Amino acid sequence: MPEICPMIEDPNPQRTPLSELGEFGLIERLTADLVAIQPSTVVGVGDDAAVVRPDADCDLLVSTDLLVEGVHFDLAYVPLQHLGYKAAVVNFSDIYAMGGTPTQLTVALAVSSRFPVEALDEVYAGIRRACAHYRVDLVGGDTTSSPSGLTLALTAIGQVARGAAVGRGGAQATDLIVVSGDLGGAYMGLQVLEREKATYLANPNLQPDLSEYQYPIERQLKPEARKDIVELLAELGVKPTSMMDVSDGLSSELLHLTKASGLGCVVFEDKLPIDPVVLHACEEFGIHPATAVLNGGEDYELVFTVSLEDYDQIKGNPHITPIGHMTASEGAYLVNLAGEHVPLAAQGWKAFTAK
Amino acid sequence: MPEICPMIEDPNPQRTPLSELGEFGLIERLTADLVAIQPSTVVGVGDDAAVVRPDADCDLLVSTDLLVEGVHFDLAYVPLQHLGYKAAVVNFSDIYAMGGTPTQLTVALAVSSRFPVEALDEVYAGIRRACAHYRVDLVGGDTTSSPSGLTLALTAIGQVARGAAVGRGGAQATDLIVVSGDLGGAYMGLQVLEREKATYLANPNLQPDLSEYQYPIERQLKPEARKDIVELLAELGVKPTSMMDVSDGLSSELLHLTKASGLGCVVFEDKLPIDPVVLHACEEFGIHPATAVLNGGEDYELVFTVSLEDYDQIKGNPHITPIGHMTASEGAYLVNLAGEHVPLAAQGWKAFTAK
Repeated sequence: MPEICPMIEDPNPQRTPLSELGEFGLIERLTADLVAIQPSTVVGVGDDAAVVRPDADCDLLVSTDLLVEGVHFDLAYVPLQHLGYKAAVVNFSDIYAMGGTPTQLTVALAVSSRFPVEALDEVYAGIRRACAHYRVDLVGGDTTSSPSGLTLALTAIGQVARGAAVGRGGAQATDLIVVSGDLGGAYMGLQVLEREKATYLANPNLQPDLSEYQYPIERQLKPEARKDIVELLAELGVKPTSMMDVSDGLSSELLHLTKASGLGCVVFEDKLPIDPVVLHACEEFGIHPATAVLNGGEDYELVFTVSLEDYDQIKGNPHITPIGHMTASEGAYLVNLAGEHVPLAAQGWKAFTAK
Repeated sequence: MPEICPMIEDPNPQRTPLSELGEFGLIERLTADLVAIQPSTVVGVGDDAAVVRPDADCDLLVSTDLLVEGVHFDLAYVPLQHLGYKAAVVNFSDIYAMGGTPTQLTVALAVSSRFPVEALDEVYAGIRRACAHYRVDLVGGDTTSSPSGLTLALTAIGQVARGAAVGRGGAQATDLIVVSGDLGGAYMGLQVLEREKATYLANPNLQPDLSEYQYPIERQLKPEARKDIVELLAELGVKPTSMMDVSDGLSSELLHLTKASGLGCVVFEDKLPIDPVVLHACEEFGIHPATAVLNGGEDYELVFTVSLEDYDQIKGNPHITPIGHMTASEGAYLVNLAGEHVPLAAQGWKAFTAK
């Protein structure tokens, strides 16, 4: 992550006004030299619609995400290239969360004229980098102006073997609940960045030292989708009975899984995987680590359920952690360190109440 | 079109704040009771991604459009239900313009808290009406808040027989250029609505009489996609060599067709199909009819090229009009009523220069 301190601006920015290129010129510039790498991409950018030829015996997956400046990101500390990268990755994450592989992406971008062309170059550079990393073709979209701010709406297309998409509702009452990686980091990264922004606004000459928070900041600014976990489970011969990605916080995702399956669940606080640097940040900010995990969101890890019979396949694997199990009785609970059952509450984006 | 005068507000609007429902409650309300009618829809709204199973021997088409308040629409005279309908239809139009059939739709919506829940109900009612009319399944999306205004990003998925997608670049030098319906109406409808808005702002008690402009206003507020033309051409056994929909103005679309084919074109002013009511409005507003057709846009008619051999099949058909032909030499020209060759100029959205 080279841009560890995004609050420091480029001293020599090029600023070409959007009006200089116009709509068609801008689209041509942003989509120049795109080369399709997926065999399923027949026609990419440049026609009324992209043409995709799915592999035989595959289902297609379609996922859309919207990112709005001032709601989902703050350009005071989000570098534009990271924004583009993250916007693409969160979409890919939805495709992996269905057990599939992303193959194509469309990008709709609305931007006010306060952004120079070079800013959009940066956003697209991030999107292209994500596409290259995940082997996804950018095949279309729409670019337009907006009265204020920057809005990105991305739609990912993916493939999965016919009938093999992993939904939210397939868990059985005795299934284990498993998460990939560790949780709460993206939320704590956001706390660090918000604090540094306040410090920066108070004294722009102060050079923040963010090196000790590099991990949570990277979790927030440049998340990755867990393509490797989908591949790992396939190698282990384990088919999740249900799966989601952790975008809104583990609590919300567990409530979705229990609602969709008509079951309940119990997860254990002492099993929640949390990175030591994140734990340290929680302590410093006076935030309960379980709160960061359950309500924080944006970690883009996978949470999934597996049959008890698969326990031998997954136990001890350093990339995934069983944190609890489904229950026949309804209700979703955290068993805290004191052994008490605490009901989980839905969070989701609180954007509508915050404004 | 019952809402001929949208500037008059509902005297008893229900106003439920968005914060009362929250994100998940809002999504549930907006997507309640959706029933899939397309056999290719396997999983619709409610998972990380929709699952689509394309028909055997079909290619998939993907098209994204973005509509931004204050750029693409003005809620002073655009009823929310019409906005939703139009947002869906312009996407479907892109799929028909490839010779395909739209089958699924995702909707990403960013909205400020000044909108009550009932406003989004209206937008979704329009989207659902369009989906029902065109037999498209609403299968997913994203709903979030925005600091200001209303932004809609819709992605349509469609199908076309394998290898049969009609692109922009297939025209031959002697092909005829044909348009469906008539052109310029949407642009003149916009002029009427803008004038009435100004009148209304000056004196809100004045009841505008828009009845004589019903046709152009309907073209602007409630366009339809030319599904019937795609079907007609199939019945006639005519396969267009290239095709686009007229969204940015005929001039821009012709420049796209010539650029993509490496050819030129000539169209004749006296062949341009214009409705008498639109002609009358042009006269009243002092706008040259050819300007409304060439630079106006938003008519969502189809412009396509056909081989000379197909002329007998299409001639005299009241739904389509040959307006000119491709040329081996480069350059795109209008032959005006005086017989002069006038070069066509690209327009597109001038949004970036207007702000």
